[in-house]
Parts: sequence; C-alpha cells; structure tokens
Amino acid sequence: MSAFEVFHEDAGLPARTGLLRTAHGPVETPAFMPVGTGGAVKGITPQQLKEAGVGIVLANTYHLLLRPGLEAVEKLGGLHKFMAWDRPILTDSGGYQVFSLSQLTKVTDDGVEFASHVDGARVYLNAEIATEAQNRLGADVIMCFDQCPASAVSRVDLEKSADRTIRWAERSKKAHANDNQLLFGIVQGGTDMDIRRRCASELVKVDFDGYAIGGLSVGEAREDMARTVSETVRSLPADRPRYLMGVGTPADIITAVMAGVDMFDCVLPTRNGRNAFAFAENGPVRLRNSVHADCREPIEAGCDCICCRNFSRGAIRHFFNSQEMLGPILVSIHNLRFYQRLMGRIRENLKSNTFTEWARVQLRKYASA
Amino acid sequence: MSAFEVFHEDAGLPARTGLLRTAHGPVETPAFMPVGTGGAVKGITPQQLKEAGVGIVLANTYHLLLRPGLEAVEKLGGLHKFMAWDRPILTDSGGYQVFSLSQLTKVTDDGVEFASHVDGARVYLNAEIATEAQNRLGADVIMCFDQCPASAVSRVDLEKSADRTIRWAERSKKAHANDNQLLFGIVQGGTDMDIRRRCASELVKVDFDGYAIGGLSVGEAREDMARTVSETVRSLPADRPRYLMGVGTPADIITAVMAGVDMFDCVLPTRNGRNAFAFAENGPVRLRNSVHADCREPIEAGCDCICCRNFSRGAIRHFFNSQEMLGPILVSIHNLRFYQRLMGRIRENLKSNTFTEWARVQLRKYASA
Repeated sequence: MSAFEVFHEDAGLPARTGLLRTAHGPVETPAFMPVGTGGAVKGITPQQLKEAGVGIVLANTYHLLLRPGLEAVEKLGGLHKFMAWDRPILTDSGGYQVFSLSQLTKVTDDGVEFASHVDGARVYLNAEIATEAQNRLGADVIMCFDQCPASAVSRVDLEKSADRTIRWAERSKKAHANDNQLLFGIVQGGTDMDIRRRCASELVKVDFDGYAIGGLSVGEAREDMARTVSETVRSLPADRPRYLMGVGTPADIITAVMAGVDMFDCVLPTRNGRNAFAFAENGPVRLRNSVHADCREPIEAGCDCICCRNFSRGAIRHFFNSQEMLGPILVSIHNLRFYQRLMGRIRENLKSNTFTEWARVQLRKYASA
Repeated sequence: MSAFEVFHEDAGLPARTGLLRTAHGPVETPAFMPVGTGGAVKGITPQQLKEAGVGIVLANTYHLLLRPGLEAVEKLGGLHKFMAWDRPILTDSGGYQVFSLSQLTKVTDDGVEFASHVDGARVYLNAEIATEAQNRLGADVIMCFDQCPASAVSRVDLEKSADRTIRWAERSKKAHANDNQLLFGIVQGGTDMDIRRRCASELVKVDFDGYAIGGLSVGEAREDMARTVSETVRSLPADRPRYLMGVGTPADIITAVMAGVDMFDCVLPTRNGRNAFAFAENGPVRLRNSVHADCREPIEAGCDCICCRNFSRGAIRHFFNSQEMLGPILVSIHNLRFYQRLMGRIRENLKSNTFTEWARVQLRKYASA
C-alpha cells in the first residue's frame, strides 16, 4: 500500500487533498511544515507548535550534522526524542544548505567538500553519506541529496546539476536503509522546462515515495516560479505527494496548491514573526508601526491563537520596542497558527468543492494588500 | 477584615504560612514572585507561567512609566490586560530603579529628578507621583516610594535616606487613591539595626497593608542580610505580610522564611535560566558544560516542568550552543517551576510541622553544592 492517498480532487484544477501516512502518524495534505533548523522551531516549544495545529516539522540535516553531530543525536535518543516532537518530521538532505550557506571547497560528480559555517572544519557529503545521516537521524520523510544550482546559471551548468541530481537520487535510493522512512526525490532544473521535465521523468523511473520541486523561490520572478511548478507537476505521478521546497508566502502556497502541490516548508512565519511582521488575511500587520501604540485590538480579529486571544497590538508593539523576547515569540506563534489555519481552509474548500472560487478571492486580496 | 491571614505558625521559628487576599484572587504565602520588568517575564508566556505554578508576578513601575508610559497602559486596558495576566500583580514604586539604573540629576527631600535610561529624558518622581502611577497601572499590591541608599554609605546618609523613606511613606499613604490595591511600606536602613528598627516602627505607626524589607541583597555579606532580616521582622506586626525585596537564592529564601518572611521577588530564575544555569535540589546544573553533551537525563529527575518532562540535558546544551531561543526559554521555565516547587515544599513542611528540620537539611545541601 502506498503511503500516500488522494482523497479529494478538485473538479477544475489539479488541486487535491490527501493523507500521507508516516511512522509517527498521518499528515493531512496540503500541509505546511514549519522549519526547525537545528532541532527547534525558533523560540517555540513543541507544546506551542501543537497548540498552533502543526502536524509535521522540517529539520535540517546540514545543521544537525555540523552541530551537535549524528552521534550526539543518536545518543540522545534520535531526532524525535531530541526535539521532543512525537509527530512526523521531514529532514532535507543538506544539498540546499551546502550550496547556499557553505564555503565550497570542491564539487565533483561524486559529491561536495565544504567548510562548516560553524567552525570552518572540512566536511564531505555525497548521496550515500547524506542518506546514511538521515537514516540515523530518524525522521519520517527524508530527501535525496541534490545539487541546487545558483539562480543565474548557464544552461550547460543547469544541465550538469540536473544530471548530478538524477544520479545522486539513484544512489540515495540504493543507500537508503531504513524502512520506517519515506524517501522523496528532488526535481531540479531552474526555470528551464526541458531540463525540469527530463529530471522529473528520470526520477519517476527510479520510483520514490514522493517528489519535491527544489531550486525555486531563489530570486526568480513569481510568474516563472508558478509556471515551473505547474509544468513540473505534470511530469509527476498523481499517486505520490508533491512537495514544493522553501515556499512560501500565503499567495505562493495557494497558487502552488492550485497547480497540484501537497506539501510546503518555509521559514517565513517564524522569521517574519521575529521581525514584528504578522500575517493576516486582510494584509500584513507590522507591529513596530506607531499606529498600533494604543491599539487594544488583537493582531487579527477572530484568530484563535494564544497571542490573539490574549494580547493587544499595543502590548506586542511595546514588547518589540523593549526588546522583550515575548514579542518575537507571540508573533511567531500567531504566524504559525495563521499558516495552519490557511492550510485548513485550503483543505476545507477543496472538500466542499469551493476551492477555485475561494482561491481566486484570496489571491486578489493578497495582491492588493 | 485584614487582607492577610496567618494560617500556621511554626512551633520554634517565626516562620508561618498565610493567605494574602487581593482583587485578583488569593496568594498562598510564603510566595515567590517572578519579575516581569516591562510587562513580560522574559521569554515566558502567561500560560507557561501558570503551568509553572506561578500565582503572582511583579512588574516595575519605573520601566513601565518610561516605556510604554502610563497613558498607553491605561488605553490598553490596565496592567492585567496589558500583560494578559489575570492573577495578582505587585508593582514596585520605582524607588530602587531610580537609584540603581538612572543617572540622577537631583535628589531633594521632596523627590528625585533623573534621566531616563531609555532616551535620556528628564523625569521627576516623588511619593505622590509614584503612588498615582501605581494607582493608574492597577496592580493588586503597590509599594511606597522609598530612597534605597547605596551599599557603602555613611551612617549620616543612611539616617537621612531612612528619614526620607518614612516621610515619603506617609505621603504615599495619603496619596493612595485606589481601594482595590493594597499598599505596602518599605523599611530601609542598610544593615544598621538602630535605623532599621526606627524606620520599621515609624512605618508601623502609619499602618500599611504589608511591610517590605528593602535595600538588601545589594552586596552586603550573607550573614549581615540574614541578621538584618531577622531583626527587622521583630519590629513588624505579626498580622501583616512581610516582603523581602529582590531576594534571592533558594538558601536565602529558606533562611528568610525561617526568620518570618512571607513574600519574595527575584530575577534569578529567569536571568540564570537565560545563562544556561539551572537550579536543582542537589546543586545547580550548568548546561553549557560539555559533560552534558550526550546526557539523556532531564535537568532534574522527578521535576514536572515541561522542560524536564520532554528535553534531555544534551538537547538543551545544543540549543545554547546554537543560539536557539529555546535554550533560554526551557531553562527559565525549569527555574520558575523549581522556585514554585520550593515554595510549595516550604508551605507543606510548615503545615506538617516538619519545617525546621527540613530547612536545616536543605541549607546544608545548598551550602555544600
């Protein structure tokens, strides 16, 4: 039996609801995963994540590998125990961070040597090492090691990185040795549709539990991203989950769900929360703005998060002005809850066959906010 | 009827349990108040405070007066609404901060002019202004405006500050205009027992709802503090709560309860928590220490806080090493819970007539830790 089941398909669009079954329970899709880079979603306890309705989180293999290291996580009982999170976890393979955060020392067809951003130590990663690392960390969904090309790269280099990504995916699958974990392939190819299609069809031949679209939201135009997602989804099987990595804004997510994407991760709710930027259906609320100084209203009327049920905009603004940690914490909690409510509304509208109209209204709202 | 009731008096020591009735509910004493300087206990939500068993918090008039200001707190619904805390709050008068944090510009018999540490603005505080400020903030217990002398001051200056403190207390009582608030006087006088006794007896003549011992834990020897507390308590009426301001370590608190003190506040649980220092009955746990790197044990076995029920020492150490906000948050929560459990054990042992022996064992334990 496949780990993924499609429940409801939209009448007009490729959008759908589904259920991804994992060793730590099921995940309703479309799903959004908050990012717990080094084993913690910044400033938020697991209890607060659950209260915000979070069902699955992402952790970064790259960061955990460098600090505290695989052996430490194993000795501390594995990733779930380490993070005190008993629901599903997805780990990325480290590919994205190796190419975006590290000082690269050498890239070959076999793998990548890079300098740790923590202490400068030389580290080597390839498909086998990244897969073994994820097997040992013990997340429920793990990712193939991929080469994420820079956003402005020649077609030749884009081809080359896609070729490597395909070969590394084959090797990741061979190396994968933990039956409790689902393994997803990652489609690369920038915004070049020929390369994307070829990469997707080669990965589908290898046969993965799910397929991710990587290398987007790295500076390309919004329309290029939407077109690439939409085209790439056509090359992916309908019975497997599709995961758009590192995306995105509420509008990006709605657009991608319309194109048939099932899973998302992004640092936006927590990063923006730490910067006093709150998501709200009628446009963002910037809590540092002096208009909120005497405002008794919550960030978003009707929101059921612990921030909106308890704190006024004026108090939250004061916490930011006074460098009180509670400001970043409260707005992060609100944003996490906002994203979970967004995904809930997406799923509800899909189930009630009102998604297309609802999504168009939402996108107009976000465009004018 | 008095707001304070003594329930159980120890057979041998002046220690006792009691109940302080306030407009936002009762507080069992001996009680410890975490410090929410600017309207928030650093990094901790009101929900987490309640889970840690916190019954009353302290907020600083000085800080709130300078930022966001009285009018803002009033417009935002008063201090309880502002902090999202529906249990009792005590505000100090600002006296301590004026003399310790500010650049003083002028002290007279009437009051103090100082420069705000936020923006350098000149601010004037005296008994009437500090009392009106606290009336408007709306805490359940408020404090008289006092002059807190520097730790190494001449006897003449100590006399002078005690005289001012007495006169300012009389004026604070006259100015007090909010029947929902209890007003406490503050005994000053350094470690000079003649001055302490005179200050206490003058304040008792004015008649306050409770009496605080201020100006200690400012650098004097531990024995001097213990002796001063013990002697000062003898000059205070048995039917009013006694509050030792800004104290202290678990051993300080046990010692002061033995001398008859009912209430405490201190930044130690949260400040030390942010610095990876965890309180534990068998001696502190310093989470940055590499001995904890692979340690699966909680900070304190048997502790029922959300940190100890979920996270290993190794994971918490990693959060500190990686500058994850969750480290300071988790250890602060543990320390707050530790202090509440400590106060609970103090009250239980008093009720069961085992306090004297229990306290001596505890003090030996802390002395050797």
